[in-house]
Amino acid sequence: MQVYDLAGAEAERRFSPYCWRTKLALMHKGLPFETIPWRFTDKEAIAFSGQGRVPVLVDGEHVVFDSWTIATYLEDTYANRASLFCGTGGRGITRFVNSWADSVLVGAILRLIATDILAHISEKDRRYFRETREKRFGMTLEALTADRDTNVLAFRKALEPLRGILQAQPYVSGESPAYADYVVFGCFQWARCTSPFRLLLKDDPVWAWRDRLLSAFDGFASKALGYPV
Amino acid sequence: MQVYDLAGAEAERRFSPYCWRTKLALMHKGLPFETIPWRFTDKEAIAFSGQGRVPVLVDGEHVVFDSWTIATYLEDTYANRASLFCGTGGRGITRFVNSWADSVLVGAILRLIATDILAHISEKDRRYFRETREKRFGMTLEALTADRDTNVLAFRKALEPLRGILQAQPYVSGESPAYADYVVFGCFQWARCTSPFRLLLKDDPVWAWRDRLLSAFDGFASKALGYPV
Repeated sequence: MQVYDLAGAEAERRFSPYCWRTKLALMHKGLPFETIPWRFTDKEAIAFSGQGRVPVLVDGEHVVFDSWTIATYLEDTYANRASLFCGTGGRGITRFVNSWADSVLVGAILRLIATDILAHISEKDRRYFRETREKRFGMTLEALTADRDTNVLAFRKALEPLRGILQAQPYVSGESPAYADYVVFGCFQWARCTSPFRLLLKDDPVWAWRDRLLSAFDGFASKALGYPV
Repeated sequence: MQVYDLAGAEAERRFSPYCWRTKLALMHKGLPFETIPWRFTDKEAIAFSGQGRVPVLVDGEHVVFDSWTIATYLEDTYANRASLFCGTGGRGITRFVNSWADSVLVGAILRLIATDILAHISEKDRRYFRETREKRFGMTLEALTADRDTNVLAFRKALEPLRGILQAQPYVSGESPAYADYVVFGCFQWARCTSPFRLLLKDDPVWAWRDRLLSAFDGFASKALGYPV
Protein backbone atom coordinates (compact mmCIF):
# COMPACT_ATOMS: atom_id res chain seq x y z
CA MET A 1 0.00 0.00 0.00
CA GLN A 2 1.00 3.55 -0.55
CA VAL A 3 0.11 6.68 1.36
CA TYR A 4 0.57 10.13 -0.13
CA ASP A 5 1.90 11.96 2.89
CA LEU A 6 2.31 15.72 3.37
CA ALA A 7 5.99 16.68 3.60
CA GLY A 8 7.82 19.89 4.45
CA ALA A 9 10.91 21.44 2.92
CA GLU A 10 12.75 18.30 3.98
CA ALA A 11 11.12 15.22 2.46
CA GLU A 12 11.30 13.43 5.81
CA ARG A 13 9.32 16.11 7.70
CA ARG A 14 5.83 14.58 7.70
CA PHE A 15 3.45 16.73 9.67
CA SER A 16 -0.16 16.39 8.49
CA PRO A 17 -2.48 15.49 11.41
CA TYR A 18 -4.74 13.62 8.98
CA CYS A 19 -1.86 11.63 7.45
CA TRP A 20 -0.73 10.66 10.95
CA ARG A 21 -4.19 9.23 11.58
CA THR A 22 -3.90 7.10 8.46
CA LYS A 23 -0.35 5.93 9.14
CA LEU A 24 -1.21 4.91 12.70
CA ALA A 25 -4.37 3.15 11.47
CA LEU A 26 -2.19 1.11 9.10
CA MET A 27 0.25 0.30 11.91
CA HIS A 28 -2.68 -0.72 14.13
CA LYS A 29 -3.92 -3.08 11.43
CA GLY A 30 -0.40 -4.42 10.94
CA LEU A 31 -0.49 -3.60 7.24
CA PRO A 32 2.83 -2.75 5.57
CA PHE A 33 2.88 0.50 3.62
CA GLU A 34 5.19 3.00 2.05
CA THR A 35 4.74 6.75 2.09
CA ILE A 36 5.18 9.11 -0.81
CA PRO A 37 6.19 12.64 0.16
CA TRP A 38 3.75 15.18 -1.23
CA ARG A 39 3.49 18.97 -1.04
CA PHE A 40 0.39 21.16 -0.83
CA THR A 41 0.82 22.32 -4.41
CA ASP A 42 1.47 18.88 -5.97
CA LYS A 43 -2.15 18.71 -7.09
CA GLU A 44 -1.41 16.75 -10.29
CA ALA A 45 0.39 14.00 -8.39
CA ILE A 46 -2.89 12.98 -6.71
CA ALA A 47 -5.31 14.04 -9.43
CA PHE A 48 -6.00 10.32 -9.99
CA SER A 49 -7.84 10.36 -6.65
CA GLY A 50 -10.33 12.90 -7.98
CA GLN A 51 -9.44 15.59 -5.45
CA GLY A 52 -6.48 17.55 -4.16
CA ARG A 53 -5.74 16.72 -0.53
CA VAL A 54 -3.87 14.06 1.40
CA PRO A 55 -3.91 11.45 2.81
CA VAL A 56 -4.60 9.40 -0.28
CA LEU A 57 -4.35 5.64 0.19
CA VAL A 58 -3.60 3.37 -2.75
CA ASP A 59 -4.40 -0.26 -2.00
CA GLY A 60 -3.96 -2.21 -5.22
CA GLU A 61 -6.79 -1.04 -7.42
CA HIS A 62 -8.49 0.88 -4.65
CA VAL A 63 -7.88 4.60 -4.22
CA VAL A 64 -9.29 6.12 -1.03
CA PHE A 65 -9.01 9.68 0.28
CA ASP A 66 -10.11 11.51 3.45
CA SER A 67 -8.72 10.14 6.71
CA TRP A 68 -12.09 9.07 8.14
CA THR A 69 -13.08 7.31 4.92
CA ILE A 70 -9.70 5.59 4.85
CA ALA A 71 -10.17 4.38 8.44
CA THR A 72 -13.57 2.89 7.64
CA TYR A 73 -12.18 1.35 4.43
CA LEU A 74 -9.36 -0.32 6.37
CA GLU A 75 -11.74 -1.51 9.08
CA ASP A 76 -14.15 -3.07 6.59
CA THR A 77 -11.55 -4.46 4.17
CA TYR A 78 -9.25 -5.90 6.83
CA ALA A 79 -12.00 -6.86 9.25
CA ASN A 80 -10.13 -9.89 10.61
CA ARG A 81 -7.30 -7.70 11.94
CA ALA A 82 -7.32 -5.64 15.16
CA SER A 83 -10.35 -3.35 15.13
CA LEU A 84 -9.75 0.38 14.80
CA PHE A 85 -13.07 1.10 16.48
CA CYS A 86 -12.94 -1.37 19.38
CA GLY A 87 -15.49 -3.55 17.64
CA THR A 88 -18.39 -2.90 15.30
CA GLY A 89 -20.33 -0.75 17.75
CA GLY A 90 -17.50 1.66 18.44
CA ARG A 91 -17.45 3.24 14.98
CA GLY A 92 -20.17 5.82 15.63
CA ILE A 93 -18.74 6.95 18.94
CA THR A 94 -15.21 7.10 17.53
CA ARG A 95 -16.55 9.49 14.94
CA PHE A 96 -17.57 11.82 17.76
CA VAL A 97 -13.94 11.94 18.92
CA ASN A 98 -12.93 12.59 15.29
CA SER A 99 -15.44 15.43 15.13
CA TRP A 100 -14.18 16.88 18.43
CA ALA A 101 -10.56 16.78 17.27
CA ASP A 102 -11.44 18.42 13.96
CA SER A 103 -13.64 21.16 15.33
CA VAL A 104 -11.81 21.96 18.57
CA LEU A 105 -8.16 20.88 18.33
CA VAL A 106 -7.15 21.61 14.74
CA GLY A 107 -8.13 25.29 14.84
CA ALA A 108 -6.77 25.82 18.35
CA ILE A 109 -3.39 24.27 17.49
CA LEU A 110 -3.08 26.18 14.22
CA ARG A 111 -3.36 29.40 16.25
CA LEU A 112 -0.27 28.26 18.14
CA ILE A 113 1.92 26.91 15.34
CA ALA A 114 0.90 28.49 12.02
CA THR A 115 4.09 30.53 11.62
CA ASP A 116 6.22 27.52 12.58
CA ILE A 117 4.51 25.45 9.91
CA LEU A 118 5.20 28.20 7.40
CA ALA A 119 8.90 28.09 8.29
CA HIS A 120 9.11 24.36 7.67
CA ILE A 121 7.16 23.83 4.48
CA SER A 122 8.57 23.70 1.00
CA GLU A 123 9.23 27.12 -0.47
CA LYS A 124 6.90 26.39 -3.37
CA ASP A 125 4.05 25.75 -0.88
CA ARG A 126 4.40 28.93 1.15
CA ARG A 127 2.17 31.23 -0.84
CA TYR A 128 -0.55 28.56 -1.03
CA PHE A 129 -0.40 27.85 2.69
CA ARG A 130 -0.40 31.52 3.65
CA GLU A 131 -3.25 32.48 1.33
CA THR A 132 -5.58 29.60 2.21
CA ARG A 133 -5.07 29.89 5.99
CA GLU A 134 -5.17 33.68 6.09
CA LYS A 135 -8.42 33.59 4.16
CA ARG A 136 -9.89 31.03 6.59
CA PHE A 137 -8.96 33.03 9.69
CA GLY A 138 -9.30 36.52 8.25
CA MET A 139 -5.87 37.63 9.47
CA THR A 140 -2.19 37.15 8.76
CA LEU A 141 -0.45 34.06 10.09
CA GLU A 142 1.72 36.35 12.20
CA ALA A 143 -1.37 37.97 13.76
CA LEU A 144 -2.90 34.53 14.29
CA THR A 145 0.01 33.29 16.40
CA ALA A 146 0.92 36.60 18.04
CA ASP A 147 -0.93 35.83 21.28
CA ARG A 148 0.05 32.22 21.53
CA ASP A 149 1.46 32.51 25.05
CA THR A 150 -2.05 33.48 26.15
CA ASN A 151 -3.93 31.25 23.72
CA VAL A 152 -2.07 28.14 24.87
CA LEU A 153 -3.82 28.51 28.24
CA ALA A 154 -7.23 28.36 26.55
CA PHE A 155 -5.98 25.44 24.46
CA ARG A 156 -4.98 23.49 27.59
CA LYS A 157 -8.38 24.20 29.09
CA ALA A 158 -10.06 22.90 25.93
CA LEU A 159 -8.28 19.58 26.56
CA GLU A 160 -10.35 19.05 29.72
CA PRO A 161 -12.57 16.29 28.21
CA LEU A 162 -9.40 14.42 27.23
CA ARG A 163 -7.73 15.02 30.59
CA GLY A 164 -10.84 13.86 32.43
CA ILE A 165 -10.84 10.50 30.71
CA LEU A 166 -7.06 10.01 30.91
CA GLN A 167 -7.23 10.30 34.66
CA ALA A 168 -9.49 7.23 34.62
CA GLN A 169 -7.98 5.09 31.85
CA PRO A 170 -4.68 4.96 29.92
CA TYR A 171 -6.13 5.60 26.45
CA VAL A 172 -9.13 7.40 24.97
CA SER A 173 -10.23 4.00 23.70
CA GLY A 174 -9.81 2.33 27.10
CA GLU A 175 -7.07 -0.10 28.09
CA SER A 176 -5.30 -0.04 24.73
CA PRO A 177 -5.08 2.51 21.92
CA ALA A 178 -7.32 2.56 18.86
CA TYR A 179 -8.46 5.03 16.24
CA ALA A 180 -10.03 7.44 18.75
CA ASP A 181 -6.54 7.88 20.17
CA TYR A 182 -4.91 8.31 16.77
CA VAL A 183 -7.27 11.09 15.69
CA VAL A 184 -6.35 13.14 18.75
CA PHE A 185 -2.68 12.16 18.78
CA GLY A 186 -2.33 13.13 15.11
CA CYS A 187 -3.08 16.74 16.12
CA PHE A 188 -0.28 16.73 18.67
CA GLN A 189 2.09 15.06 16.24
CA TRP A 190 1.35 17.81 13.70
CA ALA A 191 2.66 20.32 16.25
CA ARG A 192 5.58 18.13 17.29
CA CYS A 193 6.81 17.81 13.70
CA THR A 194 6.78 21.53 12.99
CA SER A 195 7.02 23.60 16.14
CA PRO A 196 9.29 24.09 19.16
CA PHE A 197 6.38 25.74 20.98
CA ARG A 198 5.35 23.80 24.08
CA LEU A 199 1.70 22.77 23.98
CA LEU A 200 1.60 20.62 27.12
CA LEU A 201 2.97 20.75 30.63
CA LYS A 202 4.82 17.69 31.88
CA ASP A 203 2.46 17.08 34.79
CA ASP A 204 -0.58 16.98 32.48
CA PRO A 205 -2.09 13.48 32.09
CA VAL A 206 -2.31 14.36 28.38
CA TRP A 207 1.50 14.56 28.28
CA ALA A 208 1.87 11.01 29.64
CA TRP A 209 -0.75 9.72 27.20
CA ARG A 210 1.06 11.36 24.29
CA ASP A 211 4.28 9.71 25.48
CA ARG A 212 2.58 6.32 25.41
CA LEU A 213 1.51 6.89 21.82
CA LEU A 214 4.95 8.16 20.83
CA SER A 215 6.28 4.81 22.08
CA ALA A 216 3.62 2.72 20.35
CA PHE A 217 4.58 0.48 17.42
CA ASP A 218 8.26 0.48 18.41
CA GLY A 219 8.36 4.25 18.72
CA PHE A 220 7.09 4.82 15.20
CA ALA A 221 5.84 8.36 15.88
CA SER A 222 8.75 9.29 18.14
CA LYS A 223 11.20 8.69 15.29
CA ALA A 224 9.57 11.32 13.10
CA LEU A 225 11.58 14.44 12.38
CA GLY A 226 10.37 17.13 14.75
CA TYR A 227 10.82 18.80 18.12
CA PRO A 228 10.84 16.70 21.29
CA VAL A 229 8.68 19.13 23.27
CA MET B 1 -35.12 -1.28 41.15
CA GLN B 2 -35.31 2.14 42.64
CA VAL B 3 -33.67 5.37 41.55
CA TYR B 4 -33.38 8.34 43.87
CA ASP B 5 -34.17 11.13 41.47
CA LEU B 6 -33.70 14.87 41.96
CA ALA B 7 -37.06 16.69 42.11
CA GLY B 8 -38.09 20.33 42.16
CA ALA B 9 -40.78 22.10 44.15
CA GLU B 10 -43.26 19.83 42.37
CA ALA B 11 -42.41 16.17 42.99
CA GLU B 12 -42.90 15.38 39.31
CA ARG B 13 -40.31 17.94 38.10
CA ARG B 14 -37.26 15.71 37.60
CA PHE B 15 -34.40 17.68 36.17
CA SER B 16 -30.99 16.25 37.10
CA PRO B 17 -28.88 15.61 33.98
CA TYR B 18 -27.17 12.73 35.78
CA CYS B 19 -30.45 11.12 36.85
CA TRP B 20 -31.68 11.34 33.25
CA ARG B 21 -28.63 9.38 32.17
CA THR B 22 -29.49 6.64 34.65
CA LYS B 23 -33.19 6.54 33.81
CA LEU B 24 -32.49 6.28 30.08
CA ALA B 25 -29.85 3.60 30.72
CA LEU B 26 -32.49 1.58 32.57
CA MET B 27 -34.98 2.09 29.72
CA HIS B 28 -32.30 1.02 27.22
CA LYS B 29 -31.72 -2.16 29.20
CA GLY B 30 -35.46 -2.73 29.45
CA LEU B 31 -35.27 -2.92 33.24
CA PRO B 32 -38.35 -1.80 35.17
CA PHE B 33 -37.71 0.77 37.88
CA GLU B 34 -39.43 3.24 40.10
CA THR B 35 -38.14 6.67 41.01
CA ILE B 36 -38.11 8.26 44.43
CA PRO B 37 -38.26 12.05 44.41
CA TRP B 38 -35.35 13.52 46.31
CA ARG B 39 -34.23 17.07 47.08
CA PHE B 40 -30.70 18.47 47.36
CA THR B 41 -30.95 18.75 51.13
CA ASP B 42 -32.41 15.28 51.77
CA LYS B 43 -28.97 14.03 52.70
CA GLU B 44 -30.21 11.53 55.32
CA ALA B 45 -32.54 9.84 52.84
CA ILE B 46 -29.54 8.55 50.85
CA ALA B 47 -27.02 8.33 53.68
CA PHE B 48 -27.22 4.53 53.27
CA SER B 49 -25.31 4.97 49.98
CA GLY B 50 -22.35 6.46 51.84
CA GLN B 51 -22.55 9.83 50.10
CA GLY B 52 -24.96 12.67 49.45
CA ARG B 53 -25.76 12.98 45.74
CA VAL B 54 -28.13 11.41 43.26
CA PRO B 55 -28.64 9.31 41.23
CA VAL B 56 -28.52 6.44 43.68
CA LEU B 57 -29.61 3.08 42.29
CA VAL B 58 -30.93 0.37 44.58
CA ASP B 59 -30.97 -3.03 42.90
CA GLY B 60 -31.94 -5.57 45.53
CA GLU B 61 -28.97 -5.68 47.87
CA HIS B 62 -26.80 -3.55 45.62
CA VAL B 63 -26.53 0.19 46.17
CA VAL B 64 -24.72 2.10 43.43
CA PHE B 65 -24.15 5.83 43.05
CA ASP B 66 -22.58 8.11 40.43
CA SER B 67 -24.16 7.96 36.97
CA TRP B 68 -21.07 6.56 35.21
CA THR B 69 -20.61 3.86 37.85
CA ILE B 70 -24.30 2.99 37.59
CA ALA B 71 -24.00 2.66 33.79
CA THR B 72 -21.06 0.28 34.07
CA TYR B 73 -22.85 -1.65 36.84
CA LEU B 74 -25.92 -2.10 34.62
CA GLU B 75 -23.81 -3.06 31.62
CA ASP B 76 -21.88 -5.71 33.57
CA THR B 77 -24.79 -7.04 35.63
CA TYR B 78 -27.27 -7.19 32.77
CA ALA B 79 -24.76 -8.12 30.09
CA ASN B 80 -27.25 -10.19 28.09
CA ARG B 81 -29.45 -7.16 27.43
CA ALA B 82 -28.86 -4.40 24.84
CA SER B 83 -25.39 -2.95 25.35
CA LEU B 84 -25.14 0.61 26.64
CA PHE B 85 -21.70 0.97 25.10
CA CYS B 86 -22.31 -0.59 21.67
CA GLY B 87 -20.36 -3.67 22.73
CA THR B 88 -17.45 -4.30 25.06
CA GLY B 89 -15.03 -2.09 23.17
CA GLY B 90 -17.20 1.00 23.21
CA ARG B 91 -16.99 1.60 26.95
CA GLY B 92 -13.74 3.58 26.90
CA ILE B 93 -14.77 5.82 24.02
CA THR B 94 -18.22 6.40 25.53
CA ARG B 95 -16.44 7.68 28.60
CA PHE B 96 -14.84 10.36 26.44
CA VAL B 97 -18.30 11.58 25.46
CA ASN B 98 -19.25 11.50 29.16
CA SER B 99 -16.17 13.57 29.96
CA TRP B 100 -16.97 16.05 27.18
CA ALA B 101 -20.55 16.47 28.40
CA ASP B 102 -19.42 16.99 32.00
CA SER B 103 -16.60 19.40 31.29
CA VAL B 104 -18.13 21.40 28.43
CA LEU B 105 -21.91 21.16 28.49
CA VAL B 106 -22.83 21.15 32.18
CA GLY B 107 -21.04 24.41 32.98
CA ALA B 108 -22.15 26.12 29.78
CA ILE B 109 -25.81 25.21 30.31
CA LEU B 110 -25.76 26.23 33.97
CA ARG B 111 -24.70 29.72 32.83
CA LEU B 112 -27.92 29.84 30.80
CA ILE B 113 -30.44 28.36 33.23
CA ALA B 114 -29.17 28.76 36.81
CA THR B 115 -31.82 31.30 37.81
CA ASP B 116 -34.56 29.20 36.19
CA ILE B 117 -33.44 26.17 38.18
CA LEU B 118 -33.56 28.29 41.33
CA ALA B 119 -37.15 29.25 40.55
CA HIS B 120 -38.21 25.63 40.21
CA ILE B 121 -36.53 23.89 43.11
CA SER B 122 -38.03 23.21 46.47
CA GLU B 123 -37.93 26.18 48.82
CA LYS B 124 -35.91 24.22 51.34
CA ASP B 125 -33.22 23.63 48.68
CA ARG B 126 -32.78 27.21 47.54
CA ARG B 127 -30.15 28.36 49.97
CA TYR B 128 -28.11 25.17 49.41
CA PHE B 129 -28.32 25.49 45.63
CA ARG B 130 -27.45 29.18 45.64
CA GLU B 131 -24.52 28.84 48.03
CA THR B 132 -22.89 25.83 46.37
CA ARG B 133 -23.22 27.17 42.82
CA GLU B 134 -22.25 30.74 43.67
CA LYS B 135 -19.15 29.43 45.42
CA ARG B 136 -18.26 27.31 42.37
CA PHE B 137 -18.60 30.18 39.91
CA GLY B 138 -17.50 33.03 42.16
CA MET B 139 -20.56 35.15 41.38
CA THR B 140 -24.28 35.36 42.07
CA LEU B 141 -26.65 33.19 40.04
CA GLU B 142 -28.16 36.37 38.65
CA ALA B 143 -24.75 37.59 37.47
CA LEU B 144 -24.03 34.15 36.03
CA THR B 145 -27.07 34.18 33.77
CA ALA B 146 -27.16 37.93 33.05
CA ASP B 147 -25.44 37.60 29.68
CA ARG B 148 -27.22 34.51 28.54
CA ASP B 149 -28.41 35.99 25.26
CA THR B 150 -24.76 36.38 24.34
CA ASN B 151 -23.51 33.24 26.06
CA VAL B 152 -25.97 31.03 24.20
CA LEU B 153 -24.09 31.83 20.99
CA ALA B 154 -20.87 30.48 22.48
CA PHE B 155 -22.81 27.50 23.80
CA ARG B 156 -24.14 26.69 20.31
CA LYS B 157 -20.62 26.98 18.94
CA ALA B 158 -19.39 24.55 21.60
CA LEU B 159 -21.85 22.00 20.20
CA GLU B 160 -19.87 21.85 16.96
CA PRO B 161 -18.37 18.36 17.63
CA LEU B 162 -21.92 17.09 18.19
CA ARG B 163 -23.30 18.89 15.16
CA GLY B 164 -20.49 17.56 12.98
CA ILE B 165 -21.31 13.96 13.80
CA LEU B 166 -25.08 14.40 13.60
CA GLN B 167 -24.75 15.58 10.03
CA ALA B 168 -23.25 12.18 9.22
CA GLN B 169 -25.28 9.80 11.40
CA PRO B 170 -28.58 9.94 13.35
CA TYR B 171 -27.13 9.32 16.81
CA VAL B 172 -23.86 9.95 18.61
CA SER B 173 -23.59 6.19 18.95
CA GLY B 174 -24.28 5.57 15.24
CA GLU B 175 -27.47 4.16 13.75
CA SER B 176 -29.28 3.76 17.07
CA PRO B 177 -28.99 5.52 20.42
CA ALA B 178 -26.90 4.27 23.33
CA TYR B 179 -25.31 5.65 26.46
CA ALA B 180 -23.15 8.20 24.59
CA ASP B 181 -26.42 9.77 23.45
CA TYR B 182 -27.99 9.67 26.89
CA VAL B 183 -25.09 11.48 28.57
CA VAL B 184 -25.43 14.39 26.17
CA PHE B 185 -29.22 14.31 26.00
CA GLY B 186 -29.44 14.38 29.80
CA CYS B 187 -27.87 17.84 29.73
CA PHE B 188 -30.53 19.14 27.33
CA GLN B 189 -33.27 17.49 29.34
CA TRP B 190 -32.00 19.25 32.47
CA ALA B 191 -32.64 22.56 30.70
CA ARG B 192 -35.95 21.44 29.20
CA CYS B 193 -37.31 20.50 32.63
CA THR B 194 -36.45 23.80 34.27
CA SER B 195 -36.13 26.61 31.76
CA PRO B 196 -38.14 28.36 29.05
CA PHE B 197 -34.88 29.70 27.62
CA ARG B 198 -34.24 28.44 24.09
CA LEU B 199 -30.92 26.62 23.81
CA LEU B 200 -31.21 25.37 20.23
CA LEU B 201 -32.42 26.71 16.91
CA LYS B 202 -34.86 24.57 14.97
CA ASP B 203 -32.62 24.18 11.92
CA ASP B 204 -29.76 22.82 14.04
CA PRO B 205 -29.10 19.09 13.48
CA VAL B 206 -28.80 18.91 17.27
CA TRP B 207 -32.47 19.95 17.54
CA ALA B 208 -33.60 17.03 15.33
CA TRP B 209 -31.41 14.60 17.29
CA ARG B 210 -32.89 15.84 20.58
CA ASP B 211 -36.35 15.32 19.11
CA ARG B 212 -35.48 11.71 18.26
CA LEU B 213 -34.42 11.10 21.84
CA LEU B 214 -37.50 12.82 23.24
CA SER B 215 -39.51 10.30 21.23
CA ALA B 216 -37.46 7.27 22.28
CA PHE B 217 -38.98 4.64 24.56
CA ASP B 218 -42.54 5.73 23.72
CA GLY B 219 -41.77 9.38 24.39
CA PHE B 220 -40.50 8.73 27.91
CA ALA B 221 -38.46 11.94 28.11
CA SER B 222 -41.02 14.06 26.24
CA LYS B 223 -43.61 13.34 28.93
CA ALA B 224 -41.50 14.87 31.67
CA LEU B 225 -42.77 18.09 33.21
CA GLY B 226 -40.90 20.94 31.58
CA TYR B 227 -40.85 23.47 28.76
CA PRO B 228 -41.26 22.31 25.16
CA VAL B 229 -38.54 24.59 23.78
